[in-house]
Amino acid sequence: MSGPVLIIGTGLLGASIGLGLRARGIEVLLSDLSPSAQAVAQDIGAGRVLEAGQAATPQLVVVASPPDVTARLVSQSLRDYPAAVVIDIASVKASVLAELQQDQSLGPAELARYIGTHPMAGREKAGPVAARGELFTSMPWVLCPHELTDAKALKTAQALAIDLGAVVSRMSVEEHDQSVALISHLPQVMSSLLASRLQDTEPHALALAGQGLRDVTRIAASDPSLWVQILGANASRLVKILYGVREDLNRLIGTLEEPEAAGARLDLAQLMSEGNAGQARIPGKHGAPPQSYAWLTVLVDDRPGQIAQLLTEIGAVGINLEDLRLDHSSGQDKGMVEISVLPSRRQELIDYLDSHGWKVLQ
Amino acid sequence: MSGPVLIIGTGLLGASIGLGLRARGIEVLLSDLSPSAQAVAQDIGAGRVLEAGQAATPQLVVVASPPDVTARLVSQSLRDYPAAVVIDIASVKASVLAELQQDQSLGPAELARYIGTHPMAGREKAGPVAARGELFTSMPWVLCPHELTDAKALKTAQALAIDLGAVVSRMSVEEHDQSVALISHLPQVMSSLLASRLQDTEPHALALAGQGLRDVTRIAASDPSLWVQILGANASRLVKILYGVREDLNRLIGTLEEPEAAGARLDLAQLMSEGNAGQARIPGKHGAPPQSYAWLTVLVDDRPGQIAQLLTEIGAVGINLEDLRLDHSSGQDKGMVEISVLPSRRQELIDYLDSHGWKVLQ
Repeated sequence: MSGPVLIIGTGLLGASIGLGLRARGIEVLLSDLSPSAQAVAQDIGAGRVLEAGQAATPQLVVVASPPDVTARLVSQSLRDYPAAVVIDIASVKASVLAELQQDQSLGPAELARYIGTHPMAGREKAGPVAARGELFTSMPWVLCPHELTDAKALKTAQALAIDLGAVVSRMSVEEHDQSVALISHLPQVMSSLLASRLQDTEPHALALAGQGLRDVTRIAASDPSLWVQILGANASRLVKILYGVREDLNRLIGTLEEPEAAGARLDLAQLMSEGNAGQARIPGKHGAPPQSYAWLTVLVDDRPGQIAQLLTEIGAVGINLEDLRLDHSSGQDKGMVEISVLPSRRQELIDYLDSHGWKVLQ
Repeated sequence: MSGPVLIIGTGLLGASIGLGLRARGIEVLLSDLSPSAQAVAQDIGAGRVLEAGQAATPQLVVVASPPDVTARLVSQSLRDYPAAVVIDIASVKASVLAELQQDQSLGPAELARYIGTHPMAGREKAGPVAARGELFTSMPWVLCPHELTDAKALKTAQALAIDLGAVVSRMSVEEHDQSVALISHLPQVMSSLLASRLQDTEPHALALAGQGLRDVTRIAASDPSLWVQILGANASRLVKILYGVREDLNRLIGTLEEPEAAGARLDLAQLMSEGNAGQARIPGKHGAPPQSYAWLTVLVDDRPGQIAQLLTEIGAVGINLEDLRLDHSSGQDKGMVEISVLPSRRQELIDYLDSHGWKVLQ
């Protein structure tokens, strides 16, 4: 990237892109409908506010607005900055491209300079105050070139993502929207549908909640206003997947309404096995093929330093942690640390920990 | 507990109870329909096999069999050992009690010696080989006395749970089954229904999978054969909750079929907000009221010792970790460590880590 880069929309993502680029010495111009949002973004060092009417010749325009105004701002930018590559970062891609393709004010030469992208990063908090230049580090950033996108646009978008430390992948807008409907939008609504059932629960029931319930409902805490836009923009793809969920739910309800009926147990087993099969397809970390890591659980006191001490000893043996979870139980000052390691190292680690005074449970 | 304790069914849970009691010096007798299962349980030190026809006068009989034969074995035990307290540990309670109450061979004096219980502990693996004496440490153990349960039975069951380190709570069989339908059986089926959709996904879509999808689908890997018995035994309660899920799912599908219709966005926002509200009711650890911990994320290299070093430094500042997660991205040898601490300590920790060379992202 040489810059300058104009960022339109200085919320969490726009301001984070600004911070990341500034840290690499690239000139950044900021613009937001909200004077206070662009002022805050400038104050935190995400770039310099481009005043209305002021001339600029950006190398790249990044439209980082809410999804529902994205296409309009991309179109405006393609006309305002005839030498610039223009990208957007909305989390749904086909609807933006369709709107641009129907835009009478844009010809093939304009559309050639546009490419849709989706950095798959975020935070629980919104706004420029929450921005971090490292937000995209190691996260996927999908590029969705369309048939008119030229090589320069693709290269510029790729350079941005790489400069910000992201892991670039490329697919069509259709592939992208299908993918996120399944791996992002579906989990969100399933978690929300489940969590919704907890609204009127007795506290004594919730007191029995374990890690399973916590895991499945964690993302149900997400911001409704953002998700309304995302789900609305990808409604046609998500709803098709939900038809399949509804079919399975009806099969499940059927087996539970008559659990003693012929075949009910078999149907139930089939439904659970299909869940097994789907879950097993989720890839392991580092893009590796799905792999079963070996887990073990260590019992620790719930006080500062205990877990650090444990991990220090594991590190000293030279075994890399593949994953780690803390599991606390209600009403107890003890915790379980679940550790996953390569299967080939598991027994060695158990032997070591056993012989060094740790309580290994599994 | 004085013992002896007779454990009928030496699978994971039965053998774990045996190991835990033996570690406390209590005499344990073992019995299982499978000669090899009871032999393995004896070999790992869970107790001594009670041969068929051999006399015994147990203080307590623990029926730890599969759910579908539990009531029959409890009934048999109440008659075989007229001085013993008899408990079961099946994960669904009302159906067992109902079967016993209809059992013509049992009078009030027998039923008084019975109490249903549910230790909420488990592992991914089954069988006595997977048993651990510490399996119940800090985990909930629900006691479900019925109207005839006498004080001695209640006290004995309580002593067992406490001896094994569990956190005892008490509720009726109906309250128990309602509670687990919601906080255990519902999350299981929602996770399975979601994971099932992943069966035919393209690998490029799964490569974008993030922590959200992994969390929501983790328990979809559970053993179908066990869950068929559990869901079957609690079918009537679970299905009522699933009617509510289906109603919400239909509302959701309605909004997505016509996302531009009047009120569709409002309905969608309402559905997401209901998920927020339910999720917020899940209690914090240590049985504390739901509390928002403050999160921060630290970027680390993915090599042995890095996380240990980080936690050592956090421990040295005297700040207790409330929770911790590892987040790896596909294709990168870097990881994020998400740390939650009491909100009042968050800024202090960020300042410390910043000044000691760590990359704090949020």
